[in-house]
Amino acid sequence: MNQSRRWKMLKSKIESLVKNHDYKLIAEKLTLLHPADIAELLEDLDSKDQAAILRELDANAGGDALSELDSEDREELLEEIEPDQLTRLVRTLPADDATDILSEAPDDKKDKVLNDLSPKDSAEIKELLKYEEDSASGIMDPELLSVPEIWTVGQILEALKKLETDEPIYYVYVVDYMNRLVGFITLQDLIKEDDSRPVGSVMNKHVISVQPDTDQEEVAQLVQKYDLMAIPVIDKNGKLKGRITVDDIIDVIEQETTEDFFRLAGALRWDEDTRSMFRTAMQRLPWLIVALIGSLAGAAFQRFYSGKLGADYFTVFVPFVVVIAAMGGNIGIQSCTTVVRGLATGDINENIIEEVVKQVWIATIVGIVCALIAAIAALFISKFNPLLVSCVVGISLFCAILIAASMGALAPAICKKLGIDPTAASGPFVTVSIDIIGIAIYFTFAILSLNFIK
Amino acid sequence: MNQSRRWKMLKSKIESLVKNHDYKLIAEKLTLLHPADIAELLEDLDSKDQAAILRELDANAGGDALSELDSEDREELLEEIEPDQLTRLVRTLPADDATDILSEAPDDKKDKVLNDLSPKDSAEIKELLKYEEDSASGIMDPELLSVPEIWTVGQILEALKKLETDEPIYYVYVVDYMNRLVGFITLQDLIKEDDSRPVGSVMNKHVISVQPDTDQEEVAQLVQKYDLMAIPVIDKNGKLKGRITVDDIIDVIEQETTEDFFRLAGALRWDEDTRSMFRTAMQRLPWLIVALIGSLAGAAFQRFYSGKLGADYFTVFVPFVVVIAAMGGNIGIQSCTTVVRGLATGDINENIIEEVVKQVWIATIVGIVCALIAAIAALFISKFNPLLVSCVVGISLFCAILIAASMGALAPAICKKLGIDPTAASGPFVTVSIDIIGIAIYFTFAILSLNFIK
Repeated sequence: MNQSRRWKMLKSKIESLVKNHDYKLIAEKLTLLHPADIAELLEDLDSKDQAAILRELDANAGGDALSELDSEDREELLEEIEPDQLTRLVRTLPADDATDILSEAPDDKKDKVLNDLSPKDSAEIKELLKYEEDSASGIMDPELLSVPEIWTVGQILEALKKLETDEPIYYVYVVDYMNRLVGFITLQDLIKEDDSRPVGSVMNKHVISVQPDTDQEEVAQLVQKYDLMAIPVIDKNGKLKGRITVDDIIDVIEQETTEDFFRLAGALRWDEDTRSMFRTAMQRLPWLIVALIGSLAGAAFQRFYSGKLGADYFTVFVPFVVVIAAMGGNIGIQSCTTVVRGLATGDINENIIEEVVKQVWIATIVGIVCALIAAIAALFISKFNPLLVSCVVGISLFCAILIAASMGALAPAICKKLGIDPTAASGPFVTVSIDIIGIAIYFTFAILSLNFIK
Repeated sequence: MNQSRRWKMLKSKIESLVKNHDYKLIAEKLTLLHPADIAELLEDLDSKDQAAILRELDANAGGDALSELDSEDREELLEEIEPDQLTRLVRTLPADDATDILSEAPDDKKDKVLNDLSPKDSAEIKELLKYEEDSASGIMDPELLSVPEIWTVGQILEALKKLETDEPIYYVYVVDYMNRLVGFITLQDLIKEDDSRPVGSVMNKHVISVQPDTDQEEVAQLVQKYDLMAIPVIDKNGKLKGRITVDDIIDVIEQETTEDFFRLAGALRWDEDTRSMFRTAMQRLPWLIVALIGSLAGAAFQRFYSGKLGADYFTVFVPFVVVIAAMGGNIGIQSCTTVVRGLATGDINENIIEEVVKQVWIATIVGIVCALIAAIAALFISKFNPLLVSCVVGISLFCAILIAASMGALAPAICKKLGIDPTAASGPFVTVSIDIIGIAIYFTFAILSLNFIK
């Protein structure tokens, strides 16, 4: 509580200093904070003020804060910031963070900064800029400590003492004379081992590594499975290219699950391009238009059935269309969500059929209960022939629920087999097809039921 | 590729050994694998075989594998395993993992194991068993290296050399004479610093810590924000109780996002209690019954309006109810998802109103496009008065979309204010109320429109 009060006071202090354009004093107040906190305070200011504060901040603190900012806020800030200020900040950062920032900067600023950096840094960043953003090489850091396998533990400890880096080190990687990765050793083991022993004899030889083009989701699954602090990236000849640390992996997990979350609802990641509401709307529209066409087809269907049933009976049956469509949609999305998430976490792999069967069984139980409730309600809602309508509603709802559950579970599995992203494609497909199939089932039963009266 | 082929061969080898009940040979084959891999191989076997293999495995490997198993698989295995075998395995584990396992064991087995463990281990685990599973103390490990602030760097390095623990150490925590946490130092800094310096003068004094009752989601947010490898847990007097490592935090993030994912769809975590499909169905039912009652109310509503409109006009207007209900539901869930996720990641905090306004603007653009498409389609679908129906459908759809977007964005925010979990409550609330409101809007416009003809 106390801490949050202090935080609020600091925030309002900074807001009042911003009003007086006293950026120097703000920088002084911020300097001792954690970069993540500086970034959080900066986020609330407008980008002109952000740029003015960064100009006054110590380059190390400013660089770290810049790399902690949300990419949305950062893009606006990068419009304001002058190239030489940007160079000053980027210079203090490890290559992976520098690359993230420069990839968002306007092209002319990016080129200017790359020109002004040291040839070594500039080459590293240019190399990283080439990679896919969501592959291992897009999130790896080329800076790491690797040592020849003939070094002793003592030599490595000496090297660690002299090492100039802000980046935390958890594992020292061991390479052979061709720079091929052959093992690793933790700092804890280095401290424990006898100084005179060659690292080759005490290192851990079971290295789990990834290739530069491994998808970041797969990298995250490995880090999670084996509880790693960092994972090395090696090229196809086994040469060490860089490492990915666990803090970057946490960001990947957050990013990937958030993406899945939104895709399934046909919405979009809320922090991606959302500054422009027009663009968000345009990106949501395809999904919605598919759903709209589906429901319009449902409406056209009803017109067709109204001819078959005749106006009187149509009026009796049609109010329950919304029940069939809504419940089918809900249950379809439930089993779809289960399978989509199971595929993403790797919990469902080979046993997709088993999972579909399971979902259908669950739907059977759920379907019986819902169909009974709906049938009883229909007795009271319906004006004419309540018993007949009640039976038709109950039976149709039960069938619609079973079909919805199977389709919801199968759709993501089929998408995956076809190489389409299951998260993006399943939601709309399931809701639309269930609307249409549900209505068709319901009116078919309705028409058949008329034989009992006539 | 090669690796996955070797994995498949190992799997089929083990399956054939299981058939011959040659558990000793299986144990030999498994011993050198990573515990996560052993767990993955065990998962496919039935619990009797799992127990037999664990009996043959080295206690360290077996204990680690047991703690890597999914809790679903583990519960079944714990039914099979004998108490003294369980003691043998649990003894090798850190207290937090041991607690997780024992909390799933049948009560008599748990008591027997706690009796057989050393008094110290037993006391630690009993203490941990008391805590809420999803609080900081439920996931913390009481084993850690803490040193007095008057120690020198050299003394700490000596202590590290002698330390007998399997648990990885990233930070050494520094405490005062009252065992109150005053700072920490990384292994990297320990190696770098001069051996003769007291740790009090070189340690980092800005410790980010949590209390035993801090919610695990909040712990995860801190670890993520500050890129920590471990976070200490201190009681309200500042005394050090334990630490939570980043690998446990990754599991928390995965677990919490998966939960959110499912709650929003009214489904359930697929690996929680899902062995019993009946229980899953029962847990999904409340959500579905709420949705069902909502859609039945919608059906009753239509009956009411059918009286007002007269059978002829009712037949003309009613097919489009499914369009209004479906599109309202889709757009409501989209803005609901955006806000629910934003609240969970902390991206939306104070500016909820700003977010609602944003969602309504997006819905305005989306609504205009969808309303136009629906109005044009209605011209073709409708039998009588196509122009009138087209106008009513277009205008109602636009209104329903705007209301759905606002309600979808407001519902989670209101739930949060009321102290109800937004993820669990928002989904059903939004879909149900939009069904009803959408139908009311549509038929109201339909009735009003008749004045133009009469």
